[in-house]
This record gives sequence, C-alpha cells and structure tokens, in this order.
Amino acid sequence: MDLQKILNEIYKEIKPQLGKGKVADYIPELAKADPKAFAMSIVTLDGESYHIGMHETRFSIQSISKVYTFTMALKMYSKKLYERVGVEPSGTPFNSLVQLEYEHGKPRNPFINAGALVVTDSLIYHYKDEFITLENILNFLRASSDVSDININPSVAKSEMEHGYRNRALANLIKDFGNLYNDPMKVVETYFKHCAIEMSSQELARSILFLANGGVDPLTNRAFLTPTQTKRINAVMLTCGHYDASGEFAFHVGLPGKSGVGGGIIAVVPGKMGICVWSPPLNAYGNSYAGTLALELFTNKTGLSIF
Amino acid sequence: MDLQKILNEIYKEIKPQLGKGKVADYIPELAKADPKAFAMSIVTLDGESYHIGMHETRFSIQSISKVYTFTMALKMYSKKLYERVGVEPSGTPFNSLVQLEYEHGKPRNPFINAGALVVTDSLIYHYKDEFITLENILNFLRASSDVSDININPSVAKSEMEHGYRNRALANLIKDFGNLYNDPMKVVETYFKHCAIEMSSQELARSILFLANGGVDPLTNRAFLTPTQTKRINAVMLTCGHYDASGEFAFHVGLPGKSGVGGGIIAVVPGKMGICVWSPPLNAYGNSYAGTLALELFTNKTGLSIF
Amino acid sequence: MDLQKILNEIYKEIKPQLGKGKVADYIPELAKADPKAFAMSIVTLDGESYHIGMHETRFSIQSISKVYTFTMALKMYSKKLYERVGVEPSGTPFNSLVQLEYEHGKPRNPFINAGALVVTDSLIYHYKDEFITLENILNFLRASSDVSDININPSVAKSEMEHGYRNRALANLIKDFGNLYNDPMKVVETYFKHCAIEMSSQELARSILFLANGGVDPLTNRAFLTPTQTKRINAVMLTCGHYDASGEFAFHVGLPGKSGVGGGIIAVVPGKMGICVWSPPLNAYGNSYAGTLALELFTNKTGLSIF
Amino acid sequence: MDLQKILNEIYKEIKPQLGKGKVADYIPELAKADPKAFAMSIVTLDGESYHIGMHETRFSIQSISKVYTFTMALKMYSKKLYERVGVEPSGTPFNSLVQLEYEHGKPRNPFINAGALVVTDSLIYHYKDEFITLENILNFLRASSDVSDININPSVAKSEMEHGYRNRALANLIKDFGNLYNDPMKVVETYFKHCAIEMSSQELARSILFLANGGVDPLTNRAFLTPTQTKRINAVMLTCGHYDASGEFAFHVGLPGKSGVGGGIIAVVPGKMGICVWSPPLNAYGNSYAGTLALELFTNKTGLSIF
Repeated sequence: MDLQKILNEIYKEIKPQLGKGKVADYIPELAKADPKAFAMSIVTLDGESYHIGMHETRFSIQSISKVYTFTMALKMYSKKLYERVGVEPSGTPFNSLVQLEYEHGKPRNPFINAGALVVTDSLIYHYKDEFITLENILNFLRASSDVSDININPSVAKSEMEHGYRNRALANLIKDFGNLYNDPMKVVETYFKHCAIEMSSQELARSILFLANGGVDPLTNRAFLTPTQTKRINAVMLTCGHYDASGEFAFHVGLPGKSGVGGGIIAVVPGKMGICVWSPPLNAYGNSYAGTLALELFTNKTGLSIF
Repeated sequence: MDLQKILNEIYKEIKPQLGKGKVADYIPELAKADPKAFAMSIVTLDGESYHIGMHETRFSIQSISKVYTFTMALKMYSKKLYERVGVEPSGTPFNSLVQLEYEHGKPRNPFINAGALVVTDSLIYHYKDEFITLENILNFLRASSDVSDININPSVAKSEMEHGYRNRALANLIKDFGNLYNDPMKVVETYFKHCAIEMSSQELARSILFLANGGVDPLTNRAFLTPTQTKRINAVMLTCGHYDASGEFAFHVGLPGKSGVGGGIIAVVPGKMGICVWSPPLNAYGNSYAGTLALELFTNKTGLSIF
Repeated sequence: MDLQKILNEIYKEIKPQLGKGKVADYIPELAKADPKAFAMSIVTLDGESYHIGMHETRFSIQSISKVYTFTMALKMYSKKLYERVGVEPSGTPFNSLVQLEYEHGKPRNPFINAGALVVTDSLIYHYKDEFITLENILNFLRASSDVSDININPSVAKSEMEHGYRNRALANLIKDFGNLYNDPMKVVETYFKHCAIEMSSQELARSILFLANGGVDPLTNRAFLTPTQTKRINAVMLTCGHYDASGEFAFHVGLPGKSGVGGGIIAVVPGKMGICVWSPPLNAYGNSYAGTLALELFTNKTGLSIF
Repeated sequence: MDLQKILNEIYKEIKPQLGKGKVADYIPELAKADPKAFAMSIVTLDGESYHIGMHETRFSIQSISKVYTFTMALKMYSKKLYERVGVEPSGTPFNSLVQLEYEHGKPRNPFINAGALVVTDSLIYHYKDEFITLENILNFLRASSDVSDININPSVAKSEMEHGYRNRALANLIKDFGNLYNDPMKVVETYFKHCAIEMSSQELARSILFLANGGVDPLTNRAFLTPTQTKRINAVMLTCGHYDASGEFAFHVGLPGKSGVGGGIIAVVPGKMGICVWSPPLNAYGNSYAGTLALELFTNKTGLSIF
C-alpha cells in the first residue's frame, strides 16, 4: 500500500472542501485559526511517516488531550479509575447534567467534559500539585511524540478560563457529589491548560503509536500501558470519541479516534499506524469537517475500517 | 485457525460459568429457560460451520430481531430512515423518556426499544398491514438463515403483551410526537411478535453472513443490502448493540454484535464469519453472562477483535 | 356587598376582552366552542345565587372534574391516598415524565394528568368496574350540584380517545411502576369520560359550596368531606390548580381554583361562596383568558383575595 | 382574640416536640445550634407584640433573607425582574438543574437557590458593587425591623463558602446561559453572606409588617412596595416558600411564609400581623419541625388560615 500516494489523492479530493464548516469561535484565540489550513500525517509502527499539508504547524489539541490524560490515569489507577468515571457512551450534551445528577456525580466516560475533569482531578490528586501535574502531562506528550518542546499556549488557556462557565458548573456539581478531590477551580484551570497544548499533526500521529501497538511505543520500546488497557482506550475512543457523532464517526471512518475543537482528529489503526488530520472548521457536531471527510476517504481507499 | 478446536476450548473454559447470572423473568415464558443451556455456532463466508453445545435448540431471539428489522427498513427507506430514528448511542435507560421528550419523539438509535418501535412502524407503514409485515420479517429470517420453518412462539408474544407497559408508554409518547404512523398498540404488538421469533444458534450465525460480507449472502449470492448500508448496521451494532454495556462489549469483545434477553448474542467478524452464542442467564446489563464471556474468549484466542 | 352589581360591573369590563386567547382545538369537539361565550356565577353559603352571561349553558368541564374525583378518592382512602399521589406543585409539563421516572411512578399531585389518572384508577379499584365508577362520579356531581341530569358528552370523550396518546403514555408508564391497579386503557378511557362531563356555570358554582363550607353542603347538610380534607383540597387547588400558571393565578386571583381547557374555572371563597366563570378562549398556559381576568376583577373589587 | 394566651397555649403544646427533627449540619456553624431552642413572636399592624421563648436570641436567617432581596429587586426592576426569574413552583430539587437547562438558565422562582442567585446578581448589578449591595441589604433589614445593629455572622458565611459547591454549580450554569451579569463567585459569596445575617424572632416578625400591610410599614409609614407588588411576594411565598413542602405548608398552615435552614420561619397574616417562629431542628423537607407545628397550631386556634 503506497500511503504517500493515498495521502496525495486525499489531499486533491479534499481541497474543494477546505473552508466549509465553522471555526470554533467561543473563545477569540481559537477563532483566529486559518479556515483553509489542512494537514494529515501517518506514522507506521516501523517509524515510516507520510504527510500532506501543514504537518509541521502546531494547533490547539483541545479535547485530544483527554486521550493522554485518560492514558495516564489508567496507568496510575488501573481498574479503580472506573469507580470514578464510566466507559459508556453518554447520549446528548443535554444529558450531561441530568446524568451527573441521576448517577450521583459519576460521569459516563472520560471523553465528555465531566469525565475529563474527574480524570484531571485524579492526576492532580496523584501528583499532589497542579503545576507538577501539568508538567507531567507535557512530559508524557513529549515522550510519546519524541519531541522535547511541546508546550501550552497560555493565551488560549486564559481565554478558556474567561468563558468556561459550563465546565465550572460541571466541576462544582461533581465536587458536590464528592467525586472531585481537589478544588474545582484548580481542576478546571488545569483542564483548560492541558486542552491548550499545541502540537502538529506529525507530532500527534507519532505520539499515538503506542495505542496502535498494545501500549508499547514501537520506536523506543517504552511501555506506556498494558495491552488490555490499550484495548480499553481504543474501545472508548470508538464508542465515545466524537461526542454526539460517535456513531456517525464509527460508521464513516470506522477507527478509534478522538477529535478536538481546534480542528484536530487522531485515529488509531490497531497493529498498523497512528493518523492525525487537522482542519479548523467544524461540522455541526463540533468535529473537524474536512478532517472527518479525509479520514473517511482514507478508510475507504485502504479498506482499513474495522467494519 | 482451527475454529472447532477453539470452540472446544471455549466450551471447556466456559462450563464452570454456566448457570451464573440471572435468567430473564419479567415474563413467565422466558423464566422457563434452562439456566445451564449453552450453544455457540460459527459459520464462515465459505459455508463451513462449527458448533458446540445445544446448537440446534431454538430460543427466543428477542432484541436480536431488531438487527433484521433495521436491515429491512434500511433497505426500504435508505437514508430517509434517519429522519425518524438516529444512529447514536443513547446513554442510560433513564434517558430514553427524557431524550424522547427533549428530542421530540425521535429515538436515538434503532436498537433501543423506542427506536425499534419506530423501525417496526416503518415496516407496517410499508406493508400496510401488520400481519403481512410479520410474514415478511419471518420470510427475511427464513431467507437469510436458509431455513424454511422459522416461526413466532405465540405464548411468548402473548406474555410480553400482558406485561409490556413501558413499551406501550414509549409507543404512545412517540405517537404523540407524530413519529409513529400506525396505531401504537398495533406497533407494540407487532414488535413483541417479532421479538418472540425462535431460532437456534446455528440458524442465527448462518443468517448474518450477509453482514460479514458487504450485504450479500455469500452462499446464495442474494444481495440484502449495499456495502455502505451493511457498514452502517455493523457500526450501530458496535456502538449501540448492548444497551448500557455497549462500551464494555466493545472493549471485552470488540466485534459488532447484538444481544437479546433470551440469552442470545450474535456477532459479526467482517469479511470472515457470523457467530452466535446462547446462554440464558443474564449479567447486570441484561446481556448473556456466559455468552459475553465466550465471545471475549473467542476474540482473545483468535485475535479477531477489531482493536 | 352587592354581588349582582359587582358581577354586572365585571361583565361590562370584560366584554372587550371576549374572543381574545385561543379556543382549545386539539380535538375537533372542543374547537367548536363559541369564542365569545361568557358566563359567571356565584352561589353563597346561604343559597343566594348571582349570574351574568350564559349561566345555563353547559360546557365541557374537562380538568375541573379532577376536583370531584380527588374529593371522592380522599373520602374513600383518606391519607392512604397520598401513598399513591403527592400534594406538591410539579413544575413544567416537561417534568411530568422525568418526575414520574425519577419518583418511580408517583405523580406529584392529583391535578396534573398523571395524578388524575392515579385518582381515577383508585376509584375504579374501589368500585371494581369502570361503568359503575363513572355512574358514581356523575352521581357525585348530581348530588353536589343538586341537579339530576348531568351527563357525559360521548362525542367529546370519543374525540379525546382518538387523540390522547400522551395520556396513554403516562398511564402505561405509571402502570409499569405498579401504581395503576387496573388496565391503563380502561383508566384513560374513564378519565376522558369524566373530563367530558358537561355542566353550566351555575351548576358548577353550586356544586362546590361544600368546599367553601368545611366539606358540608350548606343547603342540604350533606357531609362530603371532613373540614381537614376540605382544607387539603383547597390548598392543592391554590398551589397546583392551574398547571404552569398556578403561581400567577395565586397572585392575580388569590383564591383556590381549578381550570379546564373547556374554558371553565371554579374558585372557592372559604366560608363564603362558590364561583364559576366560563369563556372558551385560553391564555398561553391553557387557562381561560377572560375567565382569569374576570376572577381577578372580582377579588380586586371585593377584597376577597386571600392575600 | 388574646394572642398572648394563644401563644402560651402553643408553647405548652409544643414543648414535648422540641428536639425532634434534625439540626442542619452541612456546615459546622449551623450544627452548633441548640436543638431545644424555641421562640415565637407576633407583631400586629398596630404595633402590639407578643412573644414566647427566646425571642431576643438571634439566629441565622438563611433563606428567609430571600424574601428581602426579592422585595428589593422587585422594587428596583418591577415587572422587568420576571424576565430573569419566574414566579411558579419548581417541583423537586432534582429538577433545579434540569429546569435551568431546559428553560435556558431562567430559574422558576426567587425562592429556589437558582432564583435567589439571580435576584442577588440583580442587586449587585444595580449597586455596582457587592459590598455596597450587602450594606443595602442590611440597611433594608435594619429599616424594616427598626433595629440598627443587624449584621452578618462572618464565620457562617465563610463556612458556607467552603461547602457551597452546588450553589456554585448553579451560578456558573446560569452564567453560561447569560442570566448572571456579575462574576458567579461574587454572586455566590454575596448570597452566602446575606444568608448569614442574624436576627431574632421579634426582629423578623416586626420586619415583615409591610408585607401584611400592602407594602407600607404601618408603624413608620414607610412605603417599601406597592400593594400589587406586596400581593406578588405573598403569593410567591405561599406557592414556593417551603421548597418541596410548599403544598404541605399551604395545607397545614395556610399562610404565606418562608423558612430557612437555621430553623426560622416567617409568616404573614395579610391585614393583620407578622409572625416568626424559630426552632433549629428541621423536618425531612428542610423546614423547622417544631416551627411548622407551632404555626399550624396557631392557624387552627385562630382560624386565620386562608382556607
């Protein structure tokens, strides 16, 4: 399979779609993104990499960061983590508050905001300090992407803090149920900060090789997770990775993946490769419009969909 | 891969688990099932079949029937079906009523009861009569399993009718929103009847070969669906096939599948085979306890999980 | 206080408002009502009566009937009734299903539809037959109004049956929770029938004298309820009598009252009189537009508001 | 009517009940209250006052303060206030979050916490500063009670701040919907502070004379509200003043009233008097156990219930 050729074809087919959709504008920092920007990167288990577009340009990874914090928490707490956060799909966003109330503050999965807040809280609880927690999250991303200068964009984090009232409502409600161990404001702030990490498509594709390889980075042989834990993360990505369009993504793309409102999407082909695509304008469900299409083209062309 | 040998191993390992869990007893007819009953069948695309246990004993397929009615409706209405029923996971059972209310009577997916009722209604609307509808559902199952005498157990259907108040509540609520075209009681009755169809594990495994083969029965070459529609059904089975344990099933088994409270589970290995397992006692989520374990053993032993 | 003079003043002031609002049209039978029709009747504890408008014209009493069925059930079951239905306000209509689910099938009060269905069920359970139940409801109204020929309009009842899907959904959901003892369809049908009773404003005003007199009809000395039970009914009317506008009604009118979508409203001045007003067009909350205004004029002119 | 004699009788009858129920212990400061403490005060429109028990002992007025902030906001904004907060009962506490979500951040009434937060926000918006707002709330209470040294207990306020996660969740959710104009944390802090005001039963009974007199303090002739606004506040107290037991309170007591978790309850007899009762242990609904009983005895003995 000539992956570069396939990427080139995708690039050609996707170009007329660039600019369609709507760049996230709930904070000014994200609204500045170039609606025509596009990148797609593939890194295979043997370390070969293939790219199209602006694959070296960093963007705000946003909710993609939840995959890494979930990975870290699963490594720390193993199955005990599931006492605080579930692994099932959650239905509509409307349900998030209803479900938290009905299920006594236990979020349905680590990829809805409520769940990601609990995961972040579990990391702060472990590291005992939010700055050390952030440093460890960054170090995890630096290690898994094998790039040393990955950092947070402080103006994005600040901008989130100024608008993130719903996340604060969630954090305080979870705290009221006793399922946050730290101050809710600190948890929200740490959460916003790890969402404000910036990486390029090639760095992200590289960083998820361990998820395509049973938990072990195939290039450094560093073991991040057990094979069973890795399977768990991929399963949760498949069933819950795209908010209220997870079913659509499973159908169209058919790969475990996770999107962010910065326009990035990562996807894992188990046993084979990590993929990242980036295009800022989002579809109605808050996932990258062109990015979703590009991944659909990819699995159609390669037959690598799980279905 | 020696599938018979793998089945034999599974049988040996699963035997100590038989009887664990709880046979569905909300209707007397289901409560009569033998808690130690067990069967597992595999049919490959080339027509080879492998079995262990009581593979010729018929049982109540219950919600497994939703896969076939969804197939029929998708063939009839294609994408227009999604105007009436979604393809996304639904969260907790509690949400079913809240979501119907909040989303104006459009169920989240065809595998929750509300969605299956809309699908059944769409079939009755097409065939213009509920008896003709049932005959066509039976004929579909007869054709896809290549067995001519598949039938409904009338006492199971009657028993469901006598206890199915929640389904009637759902049907009447959907009707109130204008998303049922027929009398709600007729729809519920037709739904209970197709849930009361009885088949054996070997018949069910055989009947889903078309889902493992892009919509075409590989043994008769009969085309039931397009490849894209088939992908859709498999994707919905993976994300929504096991109620509130769909995420767990995706993790443990990693195959598109659908369970029924009669203790049956079907699973599709795309491009390879259809599988059916049967054991009446259910786990806490209403899925066959031993059946889920057997499928997990299967994907662990064969590496056929999608993750 | 010259009550006839006050009624005449109200009549004059209310005339320009007649026709404003919207006649209930969810069933054809109610849609036929004359939007300019108006009547107001007062009957005092000493038997004096005062009227304006079409006070002898009968109209569909609809939800006003819930006051009488609640009275009958409270007499039968006393405090035990509260095990099946509460006495607290319910919030939005949207909540009815959510609350039933969250509170396990126990409706919040006897004046929301769910609660009235439970009350009707309790009457059928007592009388062991729905026809005998209806006959007893009619007899109660005949006795309390001292009029022998009060009856059900069968075409209104039939029309309700053909459209009442939401009430059927409620009844089946309550049944699923075990809080209906009879067949939900029979309960719904009996409920629709007692809602389809027709009475005039003078008959209704007369029939509630016992609620203004501690449970005893002051003209016949017949005791329908104890003083405590009477206080309960008046309290529930004040806090829950007007759906989602109970707070508004308490403010504007300040009397225990109950409205129906037929355009009727009854109101009790404890220790003094029964009042009924009728005007078919409804305001946004489903209560008679001109009727609410007329009652507000009445309490403003007489100072008989409880506040 | 010899009010002192009636109070004396009540005192005798209520004594065996003192200590029953449960003192609020969600914050340590409130848990310290003497469970046997009791006081009851009546002040009539002509300035006569009657007391039993510890009527000069100050206690934490808690949610009783919502009556005064609602009064201040209604005076400031008149009907425009209803654009931000409703006047209808709200159903279960569970609904508070569901309703806020469903009704886009507009609380149902000013006496549930969500509504009181919006009212407090409206005061801060008016005074442009939270300290000036608090000073004005205190001044309002000093004026209406005619006592100059009413103050906040800072350790109660601090204790609330350390535990009030649910109120912070509510405030942030309302802010997310755009219905708070100030920083949610400031609003919550100001709210907790006015809840921590301490007054005695005789001060509270005196301070609500204006609500029994059409908005005008009968002793100073100071007009706080119009008669219509006063009627509104009394109506909202009657339908929404006791959380999920407002219906029970309307039945048992039959007076507009408002309770606080400090064990105080105020009640208004329109045209006649203000009443305050205090006893720290609460019933299952969070209202003073002995206080509710004492008020019921009062209306039974005097016939002053509105029903």
